[in-house]
Amino acid sequence: MQDTKSIYEKQGFGGQSGFGRLSALVLVDFVNGFVDPDVLGSPEIALAAHETLELLDLFRSLKLPIAHTRVVFDDQGANHNVFTLRVPALKKLTENAFESQIVDVLKPKGNELVIKKQTASAFFSTGLSEWLTFRGVDTCVIVGCTTSGCIRASVVDAMQHNYRTVVVRDCVADRAQAPHDANLFDMQQKYADVLSKKEVLSQLHTLK
Amino acid sequence: MQDTKSIYEKQGFGGQSGFGRLSALVLVDFVNGFVDPDVLGSPEIALAAHETLELLDLFRSLKLPIAHTRVVFDDQGANHNVFTLRVPALKKLTENAFESQIVDVLKPKGNELVIKKQTASAFFSTGLSEWLTFRGVDTCVIVGCTTSGCIRASVVDAMQHNYRTVVVRDCVADRAQAPHDANLFDMQQKYADVLSKKEVLSQLHTLK
Amino acid sequence: MQDTKSIYEKQGFGGQSGFGRLSALVLVDFVNGFVDPDVLGSPEIALAAHETLELLDLFRSLKLPIAHTRVVFDDQGANHNVFTLRVPALKKLTENAFESQIVDVLKPKGNELVIKKQTASAFFSTGLSEWLTFRGVDTCVIVGCTTSGCIRASVVDAMQHNYRTVVVRDCVADRAQAPHDANLFDMQQKYADVLSKKEVLSQLHTLK
Amino acid sequence: MQDTKSIYEKQGFGGQSGFGRLSALVLVDFVNGFVDPDVLGSPEIALAAHETLELLDLFRSLKLPIAHTRVVFDDQGANHNVFTLRVPALKKLTENAFESQIVDVLKPKGNELVIKKQTASAFFSTGLSEWLTFRGVDTCVIVGCTTSGCIRASVVDAMQHNYRTVVVRDCVADRAQAPHDANLFDMQQKYADVLSKKEVLSQLHTLK
Repeated sequence: MQDTKSIYEKQGFGGQSGFGRLSALVLVDFVNGFVDPDVLGSPEIALAAHETLELLDLFRSLKLPIAHTRVVFDDQGANHNVFTLRVPALKKLTENAFESQIVDVLKPKGNELVIKKQTASAFFSTGLSEWLTFRGVDTCVIVGCTTSGCIRASVVDAMQHNYRTVVVRDCVADRAQAPHDANLFDMQQKYADVLSKKEVLSQLHTLK
Repeated sequence: MQDTKSIYEKQGFGGQSGFGRLSALVLVDFVNGFVDPDVLGSPEIALAAHETLELLDLFRSLKLPIAHTRVVFDDQGANHNVFTLRVPALKKLTENAFESQIVDVLKPKGNELVIKKQTASAFFSTGLSEWLTFRGVDTCVIVGCTTSGCIRASVVDAMQHNYRTVVVRDCVADRAQAPHDANLFDMQQKYADVLSKKEVLSQLHTLK
Repeated sequence: MQDTKSIYEKQGFGGQSGFGRLSALVLVDFVNGFVDPDVLGSPEIALAAHETLELLDLFRSLKLPIAHTRVVFDDQGANHNVFTLRVPALKKLTENAFESQIVDVLKPKGNELVIKKQTASAFFSTGLSEWLTFRGVDTCVIVGCTTSGCIRASVVDAMQHNYRTVVVRDCVADRAQAPHDANLFDMQQKYADVLSKKEVLSQLHTLK
Repeated sequence: MQDTKSIYEKQGFGGQSGFGRLSALVLVDFVNGFVDPDVLGSPEIALAAHETLELLDLFRSLKLPIAHTRVVFDDQGANHNVFTLRVPALKKLTENAFESQIVDVLKPKGNELVIKKQTASAFFSTGLSEWLTFRGVDTCVIVGCTTSGCIRASVVDAMQHNYRTVVVRDCVADRAQAPHDANLFDMQQKYADVLSKKEVLSQLHTLK
């Protein structure tokens, strides 16, 4: 790993983009099916969801924009896609399935955006970027699951849409440790500031 | 790694999407600056470029659609973005810089699309998906560099645009081994068929 | 008008793109609120909806892809936008409002895509283009309302996504005649083949 | 026309979105080929280009973001599309053609974005929206040509991306009068504030 890091350092990766003027919180796929190791999740994801509550409360008290995502497919399959072709288990995440509901502890309030998506990125064909534009957001703070899946895809897209992007290390998790670690490394080197919850809370209090 | 694989297997990942009716070849960022370890590349990337020639020749002889990408930023910085903020070394990839030219061995022909991009994915705000639509493509065969960077981002986007997606293992490479391996694992489990060049050549000959 | 036409003809506009290999039917915003002159509609739109049934039946019998759109805003306004800022009447089109339900005569079947949108184009951040890609579609046949609003926006986007685009003259309508006529002219000159229902039915029978 | 207006008024159209916090100027397709009536233009477009200089100067002096677009197709046709299929005259707008160069009077400066596009909207697959995001823009002031073509398409997309959108009546023009008038009406009713140059200059001075 030291070798890998030194190559990235030598070539000029690993910079920081920081916080801008206005931050939004994007909670990716914290749904019942992804906190359950017997469905598509892991105990680490359940822990990350609990860690997220404090952050969500701060965003709420600061009246900053908050968006949640769920994966939702049509009951009769009208919007099945290449993703469901490769991972048929996703098809069970239908509108009323227990597995596709956001976990109780992070239940959205009525003024928060809830996106239903059928693919990895929270931004892809969902209108999230336009929603952020209307609210003057320039920084996305991203939490949720899985680190190597929808978090990675959402983080790359957040940067591609030109938002300063922050991943909260304690509030993202995966179904296995190695992909979690590898993707945090990639994101930090190239796409996002990977910070502890403590650092993020402190930054937001400063900006208040 | 065995543990990781068994978790993914148990949860139903690792399926195949296969080849469809018509394949395009997408060559991502095979430019001088990415084959040079003293700039942004590695010797492995130079090797992957050489491995790609045989595949490119087959796509040419079958008259299948071919698209190349380069990273190109404005000389005076008008299109600098969050990516250049984090990785300032990218700014040297200007229109006429040696580093941003496609490597000689894979030089595009006049009827092939050459995309100039300023971010990771070959699809992001480049018009690539529309170009493929007009040509009736349903399958993207992706090669280039780096595995953990623009290949990963392009592969996720190819699947998100609902193309059956294939990564050619021998024709993608990275600046370091661990991210290369980790990203091939993620892509195979979730987004794309990761195949050897031999398998891809054989499939294309069959479809001929 | 003759002068206008001769300018366009002289400059080379008014070509045809024709039908391709596989057509989809896109029904834009045929909802209760847009067939009612006391809400956001007109009697002409109600007529266009009835004219559409025969076309919908043919697409169903040929098992061709069918997508419907509705305009749907959140009850509590979480996804209000610049469009609702300019046209507050749109806010009443909530999930369960009578006005936002698709008209009975064109009620979608379970295997047809139903898109909920918050803006003009059926393609904008809705996933429609990806859905068409997965189904191998290269031609969009567009019907619905209003000609000068969501039809125009959807038709421009269909062409921009590189679909051959057809507007069915008898199956689109507006709340006023002059914008209807002006937009049919613009679309025919630049973006889409504007054909009668009879011509479209005949073309589809030929392709069968 | 009075009837049309009263229908729109009764149904609640014709609202204003106003100016926000930060405005960008988007100059659409002010190129030699579009000011020349013998190519794709008209004398009215040449006039609109001259009217635009004062506005461009103000944006420059206020150091506000400025983006220009050109239509540019590949010499050898690699990126021809449905638009060129319908309007073959567009193919002559190649990189080095006189017709595709921005008119002298509005020649871009090195820190201004110059977008090369192959379709109608300045936003479609061009990265313009991301560029505006990075600069904190929430309002697009749009000028150029033609009113019924690339202006209309760009204005609809600006609103769809959730920018407050302003069309400067004196600085947009068309190849024929009737489509110009009809499209100004549609845009004002639904998508953008249509203002005189005098009003826009005055607003910007106020915001200074």
